[in-house]
Amino acid sequence: MSEQKIYKPKPISGFPEWLPEYRAVELEWMDKIRAVFESYGFCNIETPAVEEIDALTAKGGETEKEIYTLTRLHAEEGDKEARLALHFDLTVPMARYVAQHFGALSFPFKRYQMQKSWRGERPQKGRYREFYQCDIDVVNIDDLPLHFDAELPAVLFEAYQKLGIPPVELRISNRKIIMGYLAGLGINDPGVVTRTLDKLDKVGPDGVLKMLAAAGVSETVAQKALAFVNIKTADSGFAEQVQSLGVSSELLTQGVAELKFVTDNLSHLPKGSIVADLGIIRGLDYYTGTVLEARFREGDPLAIGGGGRYDDLAGSFIHQKLPGIGVSIGLTRLFGLLMDKGAIQPGSKSPTQLLVVLPEEARRAEASATAQKLRTRGYNVELYHSDTKIKKQLAYAEKKGIPYVWFPPFKDGQPHEVKNMKSGEQAQADPATWAEKK
Amino acid sequence: MSEQKIYKPKPISGFPEWLPEYRAVELEWMDKIRAVFESYGFCNIETPAVEEIDALTAKGGETEKEIYTLTRLHAEEGDKEARLALHFDLTVPMARYVAQHFGALSFPFKRYQMQKSWRGERPQKGRYREFYQCDIDVVNIDDLPLHFDAELPAVLFEAYQKLGIPPVELRISNRKIIMGYLAGLGINDPGVVTRTLDKLDKVGPDGVLKMLAAAGVSETVAQKALAFVNIKTADSGFAEQVQSLGVSSELLTQGVAELKFVTDNLSHLPKGSIVADLGIIRGLDYYTGTVLEARFREGDPLAIGGGGRYDDLAGSFIHQKLPGIGVSIGLTRLFGLLMDKGAIQPGSKSPTQLLVVLPEEARRAEASATAQKLRTRGYNVELYHSDTKIKKQLAYAEKKGIPYVWFPPFKDGQPHEVKNMKSGEQAQADPATWAEKK
Repeated sequence: MSEQKIYKPKPISGFPEWLPEYRAVELEWMDKIRAVFESYGFCNIETPAVEEIDALTAKGGETEKEIYTLTRLHAEEGDKEARLALHFDLTVPMARYVAQHFGALSFPFKRYQMQKSWRGERPQKGRYREFYQCDIDVVNIDDLPLHFDAELPAVLFEAYQKLGIPPVELRISNRKIIMGYLAGLGINDPGVVTRTLDKLDKVGPDGVLKMLAAAGVSETVAQKALAFVNIKTADSGFAEQVQSLGVSSELLTQGVAELKFVTDNLSHLPKGSIVADLGIIRGLDYYTGTVLEARFREGDPLAIGGGGRYDDLAGSFIHQKLPGIGVSIGLTRLFGLLMDKGAIQPGSKSPTQLLVVLPEEARRAEASATAQKLRTRGYNVELYHSDTKIKKQLAYAEKKGIPYVWFPPFKDGQPHEVKNMKSGEQAQADPATWAEKK
Repeated sequence: MSEQKIYKPKPISGFPEWLPEYRAVELEWMDKIRAVFESYGFCNIETPAVEEIDALTAKGGETEKEIYTLTRLHAEEGDKEARLALHFDLTVPMARYVAQHFGALSFPFKRYQMQKSWRGERPQKGRYREFYQCDIDVVNIDDLPLHFDAELPAVLFEAYQKLGIPPVELRISNRKIIMGYLAGLGINDPGVVTRTLDKLDKVGPDGVLKMLAAAGVSETVAQKALAFVNIKTADSGFAEQVQSLGVSSELLTQGVAELKFVTDNLSHLPKGSIVADLGIIRGLDYYTGTVLEARFREGDPLAIGGGGRYDDLAGSFIHQKLPGIGVSIGLTRLFGLLMDKGAIQPGSKSPTQLLVVLPEEARRAEASATAQKLRTRGYNVELYHSDTKIKKQLAYAEKKGIPYVWFPPFKDGQPHEVKNMKSGEQAQADPATWAEKK
C-alpha cells in the first residue's frame, strides 16, 4: 500500500502553525486570557466551525466575499452540504447561538469564545486566512447597562497586561458622538463622511479632504469633521473640546456623557493606557455606541483587538431586541506580529519536568512506579524509553530542555538521586517528598 | 440596514454545540485530558484546520469521500483555494507536520493534539460531522522502542479515569499475531480474511463464515480464524491459547512476545481494565503492530478511543522511516454518548464564585475596587451591573448559581459582609483575607 511517491509538504500561505516551543507560548497565553475572562464571570461557549450560509450572510457586509463554503470532495449533484460555510468571526455565530438557545440562557448573558475563524482574503502582514480570536460579549434583553461599556475594555486591557507584551493602549470613542456631531452640522448622509474619515490613517488628511469634496461635502464641513476626528485626550477632556466646536445635538450630548462614563470608570488603569480618540470609527453599519481599538503604544499602529456596542445584535435571527457589547483579542495577529519581529521568547520543547532514568530492563516496573509516584504529586515526568547508556539518557534530557533527571536505585537498597541539569548538582531524594527548589 | 427578515436558526445535523453548563463540563474534561498528556511529557501542537487535498489523499483510504473541500463563496474561475480541504483526523496532519518540520523537532517526538476534525458522513449515534479528538503520538526515526506500546495505553486509560465516567476497558491486540497466524495457515491474501473478521461484531459468526466461504476460504481455515479472534484473556494467558491452535510462524511469535510485553507492563492497572483481545483488528492497511480499542466495560460496545502502531507514518511525505504509535480519545463521541443518555451532570452556568453587590451608583468605584481585590486573590468575581434593588441582585446570583454574594459597605465605616447562597449564612468579611470554606 505504501507507494513511494513523495508529496513534499509546504506551508500554506495564511494558515500559520508553530513549532512546539512557540505553540507552548501561545497555549500559555490562551490560558492566561481565559483566566482573565473567567475572573469577570464570562462563561465559555463553542460553536461549530460552520454555519449555514444564510446565517452568515443574513447581515450582509464586506466579509461575504471572503467566506469559505464547504463541498464534499466527491459530492453528488445537488448535495445538501453546499449550504454550509466556515464562520469568518465569532460574533455572528454568537448571535445565532443566543437566538437559537434563547430560552435556556440567563441574561445578561456573558460569554467568552476562543476559536479559529477563516477568511479567504489575501494574506499579508497581520492578516491570516485562519486565525484565533478571543471574544467576550455581554448580551441582554431590551437594554444593556452602561456598566459593561466600562467593564469590557477593562477586561481586555487586563488580558493584554497578563501576556507580558509591550504596553498596549485602548483608543475609545462612541459612535453617538460623531453621528450626533454630523447631524448637528446638518449632514444628511453621515455614512459617506464616516466611511471616508475611517480611511484617515490610510490616505492622510489631504486625501480625506479630497474624497469629501468629491462626495459633495462643503470644505467648511469637511475641515470641521477633520478637526473633530483629531480630538484625542488622555481623560474626559475631550468633552470640552467637542463643546468648543460649537455644534450641539441630543445624540452628541448623550454620546459625550457615555464616553465620559467609560473613561471615568477606566481612570484606575495605568497612565497612557486609555485614550479618548474621536477618530475611532470602526465601520458604519454595525456599532451604535462605544467603539474601541487596542494598539501597541509604540510602533505598529495595526489594531490588535477592538470592539464595541451594537443595539441589534440578533435581530436577523429572532424577534427580540438583544443589545450587546463585545471586545475581541486578535490573538493570531498579535502573536504573528510579535513572531515576525522575533519578539516571542520560545518556551520549552517539552512540558517534562523530570526524566526518570531506566537503569536496566529488569528494573522497569520499579522505575515506572517512581515516575508514577512523581506524577501523582503533580510533576510532568517521562520514564526514559530504553535501558541504554546513562550518558545517552542524559543527552535526551539536555536536548529537550528537561530541567531534572531522576536516578532510581540501580541496585537494591540504593537511594534515589536527582540531578539539576542547570547547576549540575546531584543529591539524594525521596519521590514521596522531593520538591523543586525555586 | 437592519432588515426585519428573520432567519430562524436551527441546529445543523452532525455539528453539535452545547449549552454553557455542559460546555463547562467538556472544557473541564479537556483540561484533565491535557494535564494527563502533559504529565507524561507530551508537548502540544496545533495544525491548521485545512491541508492541501493532495496531502490528505496521499495515503488513500475510505475517508476520502467524506472530505470537505473549501471554495470561496464568490470564487472566480480557477480559484486556487480549491486545493484546500478540512482534515478528517489528526494523524495525517501530524505526519505532514513531522515531515515538514523534521529538522526542528526532537526525537522521539511526543506530541498531543486536541482539535476538531470534520467528516461529511451521515450523522448517526456516535458519529458526528464535526468532532473533537484528543490524540497522543510518539514518532521516532528508524525504530521506536516497545516501551511506548505499553506507555500510551496507560496514558489513555489514566485520562479516562480522570473524567469520572463509567469504567472503561482497553482491548489490545497486535497485528503481527493475526498476520502471523494467517501466514501460518498458508493464507495468501490475509487482507480479505482480516477485513471480514473485522465485521464480526456487525454480522455475527455465521455471517463471517458465509463471507469467508464466498471469498474462497476453506471451512477448516475459516473456523480456525474465527476461533482465533475469539481469544480474549485478562492477562498474558492468550499466549498459551494461541500456541494450542498449533500454528506457528516467526511473525506470530514476535507478535505474541510484543503483546505479552504490553499486557505485562499494564498489569498494575485495575483488574478488568485490560483485555488481550485477538478480535481487535482495526482496518488492514494502516497498523503494523499493537492495536487497541477503548470501550465502556458495560453497555454500549462502541469504541470511545483507540489506536495503534504504524511503521511508515510519514512515508508519503519524506524519505525517512518514521515509525510511530498513537492513541486517541474520541471526545465528542464519548461526550455525546453520555449526553444522549442524560449521564452528564451539568456544571455551573457561570464561572463566577462571588457576586459583589452594587449598593448605589456613588459607591461604584469602591465596589469595583472590592471586586478587583478579590480577583487578584484568585476568585472569579462579578460586580452587579446596576444599583437596582438588592433583592434583584440576589435573584441574579441565584439564577446563575453563583455561590457567594458580597456586600461592600453601604455607608462609610460599615464592614463588608458575605452571604453563602446555599446555607443562607451571612457574616462580616475582609476582601483581603476572606477564604471560601470547603
